[in-house]
Amino acid sequence: MPRYKLTLEYDGTPFVGWQRQRCGGSVEQALEQALCAFTGEEIRVQGSGRTDAGVHAMGQVAHTDLPQDYSCFTVQEALNHFLKKTALAVINVEHVADDFHARFSATSRSYTYRILCRRAPSALYQNRIWHIKFPLDAIVMNEAAQMLVGDHDFTSFRDSRCQAKSPFKSLTSIQVTQPQADHIRMDITAPSFLHHQVRNIMGTLKDVGQGRISPEDFRRILQAKDRKQAGITAPAHGLYLVRVDYD
Amino acid sequence: MPRYKLTLEYDGTPFVGWQRQRCGGSVEQALEQALCAFTGEEIRVQGSGRTDAGVHAMGQVAHTDLPQDYSCFTVQEALNHFLKKTALAVINVEHVADDFHARFSATSRSYTYRILCRRAPSALYQNRIWHIKFPLDAIVMNEAAQMLVGDHDFTSFRDSRCQAKSPFKSLTSIQVTQPQADHIRMDITAPSFLHHQVRNIMGTLKDVGQGRISPEDFRRILQAKDRKQAGITAPAHGLYLVRVDYD
Repeated sequence: MPRYKLTLEYDGTPFVGWQRQRCGGSVEQALEQALCAFTGEEIRVQGSGRTDAGVHAMGQVAHTDLPQDYSCFTVQEALNHFLKKTALAVINVEHVADDFHARFSATSRSYTYRILCRRAPSALYQNRIWHIKFPLDAIVMNEAAQMLVGDHDFTSFRDSRCQAKSPFKSLTSIQVTQPQADHIRMDITAPSFLHHQVRNIMGTLKDVGQGRISPEDFRRILQAKDRKQAGITAPAHGLYLVRVDYD
Repeated sequence: MPRYKLTLEYDGTPFVGWQRQRCGGSVEQALEQALCAFTGEEIRVQGSGRTDAGVHAMGQVAHTDLPQDYSCFTVQEALNHFLKKTALAVINVEHVADDFHARFSATSRSYTYRILCRRAPSALYQNRIWHIKFPLDAIVMNEAAQMLVGDHDFTSFRDSRCQAKSPFKSLTSIQVTQPQADHIRMDITAPSFLHHQVRNIMGTLKDVGQGRISPEDFRRILQAKDRKQAGITAPAHGLYLVRVDYD
């Protein structure tokens, strides 16, 4: 059975997240239904990782084995045909080796988090950006963020339900910028992340940007290894899985 | 009655356009309903110009006269409260002189048009971008676009239903760029535009980008003063009214 690597874009709003749930439609399920409509068979997919309900993707990756050797073009066109009424699109399809694994072969994940800082709500990006009614200082946020680069015990930014065996993770890069006067953007890359790690980092960096805590406080929070000392979990709808890299 | 200048952001998708229509909700109507809910009186607004159904705005401007001297902050907060369930937000409010007129005092309008060039449809920007399945050459499009700068008879790019007395318009600037590999963006500014002028220019520049016509053909189309020689009207949902300027 030939293996395919699928690159996916989705608006997370209508989905219960990547993974199948008892109630509501997941991204995984929408993709598997399209594969079933295309091939006439029940076909499973393996994602690079789960995204929470409401989280968007510009470059989620999944792999799947198909019963026939279709061209990549055919697979992409057929899936997008059956996905037409959904908020999911297949933006690239590649043939990959049988030992390619969307999750275990991934070497790096990159996320972007977007914040809108102004009194008025967003009419254009309602479910696409975290709306905060006060300004944030991107420069101080970026200064604090640099303390996360490298190997750390990320317990302070880890969800209590996180199933990873270890709280140690390596962070490749993080940048907080201000692309427009009232926009804040965080770009973050790591080989892998703990459950809610990006959203918990964002929620705590928000406190730094607001001046509620200093970059030094931020360092102490990281070192405390205590989730209760960090800030809130930033809402899912500001988060985008931008890309997953493989060797 | 104090006069206010309102700056508006909207997702054009659910609206029938700026102007009230016999059927469906318009942006103008949504704004007037919010003003009525706020002041308890029937209040009219005057926009800088109409936008078609499906056209978005990051900076549409309207003026209105209110029965009381509210603070700008109060007006903005109150309107956004009553607009909460709509795709419209008031992003700025200013006191203006009694002779300020959103339409007649405007000295310049700027629009952006966005195109996505790839096989796969857009999951994230379904009603926000014109999806074209083939690549376009932004450099050649930009070369052709420069022929429009200055004073011209824009009959070739004017809708047959256009009510303007004259087809002569002055175009301040136009740029076609490629901000990402599969994105094309057109930024266009003029004191004012004819009906469908931006969308008709975009539809014809698309033909240039596709190689169906040359920049020289594009010049001949402008000079022909004949709408039938130009390309299609690009769809409304790729168009954004970015800003309206005043002295």
